[in-house]
Amino acid sequence: MNAFEPRSEIYEELVREAFTCQGFMKTLSAAMTQVEPGFVEIRFPYHHSLTQQHGYIHAGALTAIVDSAGGFAAQTLLAKGDSVLTVEFKINLVAPAQGDHFVARGQVVRPGKTLTITQGEVLAIKDGVETQCAIMQQTMMRIARNSYDKA
Amino acid sequence: MNAFEPRSEIYEELVREAFTCQGFMKTLSAAMTQVEPGFVEIRFPYHHSLTQQHGYIHAGALTAIVDSAGGFAAQTLLAKGDSVLTVEFKINLVAPAQGDHFVARGQVVRPGKTLTITQGEVLAIKDGVETQCAIMQQTMMRIARNSYDKA
Amino acid sequence: MNAFEPRSEIYEELVREAFTCQGFMKTLSAAMTQVEPGFVEIRFPYHHSLTQQHGYIHAGALTAIVDSAGGFAAQTLLAKGDSVLTVEFKINLVAPAQGDHFVARGQVVRPGKTLTITQGEVLAIKDGVETQCAIMQQTMMRIARNSYDKA
Amino acid sequence: MNAFEPRSEIYEELVREAFTCQGFMKTLSAAMTQVEPGFVEIRFPYHHSLTQQHGYIHAGALTAIVDSAGGFAAQTLLAKGDSVLTVEFKINLVAPAQGDHFVARGQVVRPGKTLTITQGEVLAIKDGVETQCAIMQQTMMRIARNSYDKA
Repeated sequence: MNAFEPRSEIYEELVREAFTCQGFMKTLSAAMTQVEPGFVEIRFPYHHSLTQQHGYIHAGALTAIVDSAGGFAAQTLLAKGDSVLTVEFKINLVAPAQGDHFVARGQVVRPGKTLTITQGEVLAIKDGVETQCAIMQQTMMRIARNSYDKA
Repeated sequence: MNAFEPRSEIYEELVREAFTCQGFMKTLSAAMTQVEPGFVEIRFPYHHSLTQQHGYIHAGALTAIVDSAGGFAAQTLLAKGDSVLTVEFKINLVAPAQGDHFVARGQVVRPGKTLTITQGEVLAIKDGVETQCAIMQQTMMRIARNSYDKA
Repeated sequence: MNAFEPRSEIYEELVREAFTCQGFMKTLSAAMTQVEPGFVEIRFPYHHSLTQQHGYIHAGALTAIVDSAGGFAAQTLLAKGDSVLTVEFKINLVAPAQGDHFVARGQVVRPGKTLTITQGEVLAIKDGVETQCAIMQQTMMRIARNSYDKA
Repeated sequence: MNAFEPRSEIYEELVREAFTCQGFMKTLSAAMTQVEPGFVEIRFPYHHSLTQQHGYIHAGALTAIVDSAGGFAAQTLLAKGDSVLTVEFKINLVAPAQGDHFVARGQVVRPGKTLTITQGEVLAIKDGVETQCAIMQQTMMRIARNSYDKA
């Protein structure tokens, strides 16, 4: 993967602050476990409150952390005050989401003035063994400070 | 949209039962508000625990109900004992998810022996006014009874 | 579907002119058969030069006309001089593409200053019978006049 | 990426034979330049007959080679006589497709009995410099010999 240069020296602080403002991440008991320029990792532990009818983790919960991971990965490369909104994403669920922990990684593929393209994955960890259970492609849009109107 | 013929007379009962087995739907305070052959509607009220950093509903929460709506729409057309797993979906977030209630509708486009293709949307309802805030395309896979191994 | 107001009175002329500048549409023997505000239809006849290994039309050829249909549908709502680039799209091939003609329809779902979201479908026509063989969701980006740098 | 074990010793021969049966690949002057277990590379030279209105290569032409690359990558892992059909794919066009040659690479992410998930990319090559211009996520379905009915 490419190396990216952040625009703000305090990119990690800004991204972690935005993360703590996502009520939904608290609901998932999610933690942001890594922040690099163009890369973010988020994880949460298994809990019955996140399951679908077969006892696997619901695709919506996996989606939530990988969407946030990709979105915050995009934000690491923006100027202070700029924010991001998700334009769209596509996810393939490639294996049942069974495990004791779930780790999402978002990586910027193409940064841009207006749009940033990311790829992501979710890993299920069971007894220390990682299985890739989802892959994602995502388009994020930069929202300039003082402007939350979407394009 | 097409009219579809359910294979099981008790399709609604089966789908509602599976819905109640999704722990994540309880976490979202979601209710299944309509079940027809090839169609399902799910809704939840606004709650701070479902938000992202701008105070809108998190894309992952919208995704969860529209993924479930599409998946259960697919299941309405299956035989008793058959179940569904999400293969993949793609979502466009077309407007900020602001409102007091959020309604997801999933509609079967193409039923199949193995795969069922659906389309879905999420509406944000604010003071009685509906705004479409997400659209989805989804691929579901039939899981025959006694078999939860994904393809 | 919504009714949209075009910004330019000569939207149809502008879109048809851009269409004739697509060398790939000539390669497909494609014709633009309908242009309305927010809607475009493109069709081409079956030809062996467009097939995949089973004799069906190749997904890339179907994609080409429905991508163009959605893109030009977006352009019908732009000002004179503005153009469009495809950000991304997702296609489900829902039935084998067998027929004597193939018709793509692109419809704007959400117009925007920067991004326009569309949905599309491709129909295969065989002996006068239409079968939906593909559905699409697409994100288009406006390119202001005198600027072809992508975001 | 993972190493995959082909089921047929003559996987390359089978895939190259299927490739030559795609009329659309001839129309694009496309060549299959690499075949490994779970991986295929296809390329074509620039030609005006493949362009959109700005003179870049049309997204449909890029899609055609990366869809074929991903699909044949899936086929390298199947038994003799088995074939593939595209269920769906999603593409992000991340840079304008300008160059003298275009190279698509398809890589299996998750092989399966019924479905195989792939990722792909298209590179534009201009004066020897490669620029990634598209990324793809794709779902392929295995079609058992003597059966071309889609699921």
